[in-house]
Amino acid sequence: MAERSWICRKCGFKKDLLSGYHYRCPKCHSPIDLWYDFEWRPSGWGIYRYRSMLPYTPLTSLGEGLTPLVVRELRGVKVWFKLEYLNPSGSFKDRGSVMALSLARSLNYGSVIEDSSGNTGISVALYAQAFGLKAEIIVPAAAPLGKKNLIKLFKAAIVEVEDRGRACEEALKRSKASNAFYVAHAWSPTYIEANKTIAYEAFEQGFRGDAIVVPIGSGGLLLGLYKGFSELVELNLIKDLPTIIGVQGVSARPVYEAIHGAVDIKGYSSIADGIMVPNPPRLSEIVNAITKAGGEVVLVDNNEIAQALRELINLGFIVEPTSAAALAALNKVINEGAGIREALIPLTGSGLKMIDDIVKLLSF
Amino acid sequence: MAERSWICRKCGFKKDLLSGYHYRCPKCHSPIDLWYDFEWRPSGWGIYRYRSMLPYTPLTSLGEGLTPLVVRELRGVKVWFKLEYLNPSGSFKDRGSVMALSLARSLNYGSVIEDSSGNTGISVALYAQAFGLKAEIIVPAAAPLGKKNLIKLFKAAIVEVEDRGRACEEALKRSKASNAFYVAHAWSPTYIEANKTIAYEAFEQGFRGDAIVVPIGSGGLLLGLYKGFSELVELNLIKDLPTIIGVQGVSARPVYEAIHGAVDIKGYSSIADGIMVPNPPRLSEIVNAITKAGGEVVLVDNNEIAQALRELINLGFIVEPTSAAALAALNKVINEGAGIREALIPLTGSGLKMIDDIVKLLSF
Repeated sequence: MAERSWICRKCGFKKDLLSGYHYRCPKCHSPIDLWYDFEWRPSGWGIYRYRSMLPYTPLTSLGEGLTPLVVRELRGVKVWFKLEYLNPSGSFKDRGSVMALSLARSLNYGSVIEDSSGNTGISVALYAQAFGLKAEIIVPAAAPLGKKNLIKLFKAAIVEVEDRGRACEEALKRSKASNAFYVAHAWSPTYIEANKTIAYEAFEQGFRGDAIVVPIGSGGLLLGLYKGFSELVELNLIKDLPTIIGVQGVSARPVYEAIHGAVDIKGYSSIADGIMVPNPPRLSEIVNAITKAGGEVVLVDNNEIAQALRELINLGFIVEPTSAAALAALNKVINEGAGIREALIPLTGSGLKMIDDIVKLLSF
Repeated sequence: MAERSWICRKCGFKKDLLSGYHYRCPKCHSPIDLWYDFEWRPSGWGIYRYRSMLPYTPLTSLGEGLTPLVVRELRGVKVWFKLEYLNPSGSFKDRGSVMALSLARSLNYGSVIEDSSGNTGISVALYAQAFGLKAEIIVPAAAPLGKKNLIKLFKAAIVEVEDRGRACEEALKRSKASNAFYVAHAWSPTYIEANKTIAYEAFEQGFRGDAIVVPIGSGGLLLGLYKGFSELVELNLIKDLPTIIGVQGVSARPVYEAIHGAVDIKGYSSIADGIMVPNPPRLSEIVNAITKAGGEVVLVDNNEIAQALRELINLGFIVEPTSAAALAALNKVINEGAGIREALIPLTGSGLKMIDDIVKLLSF
């Protein structure tokens, strides 16, 4: 078996993968990464197909990955939509959850904890149930009832707290007290490693475009795509890294401000809850990825997101507003005359989980 | 271009595919079929992959087909779950809709009509919108609000009538009056042709089992799987046709009674609305397929369906009760000691469209 390690690029901490679990560096508390050899040898179905490119093979499949790639010509740009909302629990988070919870099982944990009001909570609850692990999901009290119902359906315990910040603290506290596996999707490298496979699939499905447009929440999707496409360049499978256009909402724009400095921009982006993350733990990595890929951050507001959502529904994609943020940003960039020819947009989450809200939102 | 025809096996009617549309034989009103040459030459993604096995190539893809196949060992039987609920509109009907509406477009229709209270209505509305066709969906007034909302989201006109029987009459009347394309999924061979691709995919994904367990509504799924596996035998890709276990609800059992004669069975199967079809137009074909495949019909009730639904959710599959009817039937057959080693179960529709109902249903 080849060497596979936890590695901290900040303080140099390094330990074997199976020596224990670290959602962040146990020495300096920076984000932690996984180090391993890889080889391009795709075979089989789902994300299991790319096991030779991953730090370890997921224990089993619940049908995650190998989502459809649908091409449409929009305003002169060839747009490749990756239908990530057709994953088992209705979002791309299932890729990360199968990796994270496989590790929890391999390390003999009996229970997992996660803080999330939305797609990650549902995804973790589903995989925990299917993998025979107990789950506790810490949610802000204001989280939508439909999403809470889905979490309950998988018999996960729901703990309600005031807000997102408190949810994270509570998850950390409880995981320490009960020795549960703290999934910590915003920190853990397992979600980034899993999201690489979206890049591999898009490549195998024919995408050779010059740009990818990605909503940024905690940034795991952007970092995964960046890592995946960088490896495809390293393996000489593609020539150049696509430009990365990161998308944030006007009312939660930490990456934008890390690049451009503090700005005074009015407006709201509350309907795209998946990108309303004020403090992504891997902020400097995200900035670095966008810079290296010659990219930028585009801000969008509720009105632009709702219009893009209408456009996506008209195209036949039943997605949630967060997914529409990416198309809203691409529309903006096209209008400003950027010379993009072909762009990849991951459609992150299913609209079926909140169809009544979407109907209300689009009745303008 | 090879010959492709409408053909009536009852009265001998035969005409070129593109001479016009017939949802049933225009001479004798029997179900009509499509006749064409085929060749096993899979390439590409989605159902487009099997265009050499289909009467015509779908105009475009919205991501339908190539759904995951997940294997689980249940009570000594290897069960291959085909995750058809991960199609674009959340059900296997999308395979048929992309074929049917491609034909409507090729024949220059401007609008389509369909009668359905559920998945087919949503699927037709989605594809009509994406293909630039107007759609009118005739629904029983009692259809669930959530499903009506989804149909409206795609800007289809909803016409409410008393019940399912009236919906069919109304659709027929309106399509004649307005020269709209009457999709008629219960009659049209396009849905059967499309459903063949589920068999092809299962084969390519490794299924070589001895049984398939299929819910019977109007029977298009069963007939499609029967045709697909029969062709795989004809092409020498598999040796034997799997046994076909058709599944009906105790309170709507036309196929069961066509085989066994009228019976007096108590109980209800109302929660699996997709199999509550009292008069499937292709009844004798369904009986013939089950007989030739050495199969049988198994009846299930609400209690058995709800238990199987709980089992499926525990496995990580977010499906609707109709999908659970098949597992309920397999459980019954296993308990009775049938010697099945490996069974394919298509999980037909997403539970995300009716999650509140499912939560209520499973709180027993």
